[in-house]
Amino acid sequence: MHTGERMKRERWKSGFSEWFDETLWNAKIVETRYPVKGLYVWLPYGLKLRNRVLAIMRELLEKRGHEEMLFPLLIPENLFKKEAEHIRGFEEQVYWVTHGGKDRLDVKLALRPTSETSIYPMFALWIRSHADLPLKVFQVVNIFRYETKMTKPLVRLREVTTFKEAHTAHATPEDAEAQVMAAVEIYKKFFDELGVPYAITKRPPWDTFAGAVYSLAFDTLAPDGRTLQIGTIHNLGQNFAKVYGIKYEREDGSHEHVHQTCYGISERVIAATVMAHGDDLGPCFPPKVAPVQIVVVPIPFKKERNTEEVARKIAEELKATGLRVHFDGRDIRPGRKFYEWERHGIPLRLEIGPKDVNGGQVTTVRRDTGKRFVISLRTLVPDVKKTLEQINEDMRDKAWKSFSENMRELGEIKEIKKAMSTRAGIVRAPWCGKEDCGKELEEKTGGSVLGEELHHKRTGGECPVCSEPAKSSILIAKTY
Amino acid sequence: MHTGERMKRERWKSGFSEWFDETLWNAKIVETRYPVKGLYVWLPYGLKLRNRVLAIMRELLEKRGHEEMLFPLLIPENLFKKEAEHIRGFEEQVYWVTHGGKDRLDVKLALRPTSETSIYPMFALWIRSHADLPLKVFQVVNIFRYETKMTKPLVRLREVTTFKEAHTAHATPEDAEAQVMAAVEIYKKFFDELGVPYAITKRPPWDTFAGAVYSLAFDTLAPDGRTLQIGTIHNLGQNFAKVYGIKYEREDGSHEHVHQTCYGISERVIAATVMAHGDDLGPCFPPKVAPVQIVVVPIPFKKERNTEEVARKIAEELKATGLRVHFDGRDIRPGRKFYEWERHGIPLRLEIGPKDVNGGQVTTVRRDTGKRFVISLRTLVPDVKKTLEQINEDMRDKAWKSFSENMRELGEIKEIKKAMSTRAGIVRAPWCGKEDCGKELEEKTGGSVLGEELHHKRTGGECPVCSEPAKSSILIAKTY
Repeated sequence: MHTGERMKRERWKSGFSEWFDETLWNAKIVETRYPVKGLYVWLPYGLKLRNRVLAIMRELLEKRGHEEMLFPLLIPENLFKKEAEHIRGFEEQVYWVTHGGKDRLDVKLALRPTSETSIYPMFALWIRSHADLPLKVFQVVNIFRYETKMTKPLVRLREVTTFKEAHTAHATPEDAEAQVMAAVEIYKKFFDELGVPYAITKRPPWDTFAGAVYSLAFDTLAPDGRTLQIGTIHNLGQNFAKVYGIKYEREDGSHEHVHQTCYGISERVIAATVMAHGDDLGPCFPPKVAPVQIVVVPIPFKKERNTEEVARKIAEELKATGLRVHFDGRDIRPGRKFYEWERHGIPLRLEIGPKDVNGGQVTTVRRDTGKRFVISLRTLVPDVKKTLEQINEDMRDKAWKSFSENMRELGEIKEIKKAMSTRAGIVRAPWCGKEDCGKELEEKTGGSVLGEELHHKRTGGECPVCSEPAKSSILIAKTY
Repeated sequence: MHTGERMKRERWKSGFSEWFDETLWNAKIVETRYPVKGLYVWLPYGLKLRNRVLAIMRELLEKRGHEEMLFPLLIPENLFKKEAEHIRGFEEQVYWVTHGGKDRLDVKLALRPTSETSIYPMFALWIRSHADLPLKVFQVVNIFRYETKMTKPLVRLREVTTFKEAHTAHATPEDAEAQVMAAVEIYKKFFDELGVPYAITKRPPWDTFAGAVYSLAFDTLAPDGRTLQIGTIHNLGQNFAKVYGIKYEREDGSHEHVHQTCYGISERVIAATVMAHGDDLGPCFPPKVAPVQIVVVPIPFKKERNTEEVARKIAEELKATGLRVHFDGRDIRPGRKFYEWERHGIPLRLEIGPKDVNGGQVTTVRRDTGKRFVISLRTLVPDVKKTLEQINEDMRDKAWKSFSENMRELGEIKEIKKAMSTRAGIVRAPWCGKEDCGKELEEKTGGSVLGEELHHKRTGGECPVCSEPAKSSILIAKTY
């Protein structure tokens, strides 16, 4: 890491929260002044960003046979409380509707904190035979959690406005297991499109989703050195199937409970995108999801208005190819426009001054690197498209590089403790595989165990707690 | 109306409710077995239909300068109760969240029944000067109404999953008035796209939106002779602006409250689309919104499998032009396929049998008319597109014709009363313009006054109640 990067990171560590709030405000992503804690308003630019991110997710899921549906928000108490583990995991967090008009309701209604308990009773109606399996559905909805901790826009909310949850049912445990791995591949592709780096772990038993057999999770790293959980995948086994009576008839006529999985992401993935690529100027959006990919700014010279006309034509030409282009023809200084659109994270700026008009060219400025270069009008469209592709790639590489630099291998409790207290990122430690050692590691270092890494198997070293030979590696971090 | 049509209408009148439920079920639009009254599940096919309808609405609004945003669902009681008229209009219908986890909340939270009270406090923060006006935003959200009446899928819901509400603020009353008329034009275009006929009226004072100066509404006619309100447009004047302190600075430095409008539609527009074009077989969707526009069915002859290959190629060719095509290659009898897709309302079916393969043609069947005709493969794409256009037009014309036939002019209370008791559709009656006469007309006929017609001015006749000369015409109907 060069000095500038390190300084930036140091400043982010201390002032990250302010940076994040300012960034969301300057880029007009969300309005944070709604008068209830933990509720926010999506502004038009932010909503466009959200919808582009969702479009990527929808395409990934639909291509792999998931069908979109929409289930009700309100879940009657008796239905909600059927799965004992599940309700224990959520009961502190659920909002309850108790009155309709002036009437007290006979049955209290929960605002869904997640939708297993509204979806699975329907699965029980729909699934009859092996021919109905696998069933793969998803929905994008608002969910509610009564957060008592400090809330934070896009990160810790009371109304999560953008919860994508997929739910699947299968005939065999092997099919469910394979679906878990398919979901891992979907999420990897998704985060690669956003250029957001991640670690994938199997959550420890004490941090498994309420009602699941086991949980996998994707975590990324915020600039302040804390991890942010950005996606989870659960193998539910037959736990819910048994409670909600989801059975299918085998070819031999016998009946069997289905095996289920579910996996979700929320608007945290947008927070992660902002964090992964942000800098002193604010956010920088990968061209794949940027609400506006290119801003075209004419640079008038004295009374010369020709630049505006040429610039407008260039914007139209690019727009016609399907690119998302904004032409800024306002009668204010170009410098003010640059300032504003940099803070909106638009990845590419085209400037058209008299020299460009005369030379048959445009001056191009990349938001991610600040580099200026010239593109000939003769090759405008292919060159701009190539540049956007390059920006996507460079941004992803840069984010991964920074992520890797903040993942360190440590083997001593003292070292890990120090890393946690200085928020030095994610620590990879050897692990004997015993739950007790994991819990003790948390207590002694002040970090949280993210879990056993999915794709990284350690061969050497010994457990920092019991000193037995390591069987695998475990990730530890301060978490959001 | 020919005899068949009349018979169908008679049957619908008595059995409409069953027809509607069966239609939604056979077409897999919604699942009605969710265990809370008034809550339903959108199935994949229904959700696609919904999203196509929303796409039309979004495009219409965005082209006319409306920006999409997303506001919170939960509204604190104090904010919700600020506008006295408004809360009086809604207090019987509001769901209240009183608990988070095991804690009783300090301030009760309303589930929005509509969003004036969550949006306008934000307007007060955003609007500073005349340069901020007009402000035109919209959102598509779920809203909640504690309905004590009988609920009905897509029509009367406790969770309205698909509420599109637009909210605007203006500098002058004239600007607000002009926006009301602009909204009328938007909704006319929208319903014309769906082929749904409508009457537009100014609602009488006793049926005006709570907090509005006046309300306009679009009503269509269900097959059972009752009207269905499918869109409303409200001129709010300065009522909310004064309560929520939404002011702007004029060029001369003085401050003035803004003038506001709002207008909404819900998933009732999908119910209206189903009703407007349905027949004994179920729904028939206009190609503009049909989730699938064309189903391609190979008709195998004995062991001849060539038809399948040709049919698949035809489907691919059509799909490549952007049409929504489903190729049904299942190994079941073609008749079963026809039956199924007719009940899904797919507007066009292509059959490819051995004769078609040999003749270089496809056999085409229109869902709306049942007519069969042949299209040459040489002109496949343009002919299919032309046919879909023609179907859109014919369906709209037919729906309007039926609507007009069920709108009759009557001048005597006795006649109107009879029309109401036999559910004979909408009655247009002369009106003196006095509120009392309107209310008396409701009492004496058992119908509801929809209001004064927006585009129809009556010149002759006399008020059926007071016998004074009519100043305009009024519409009366049995309503949903």
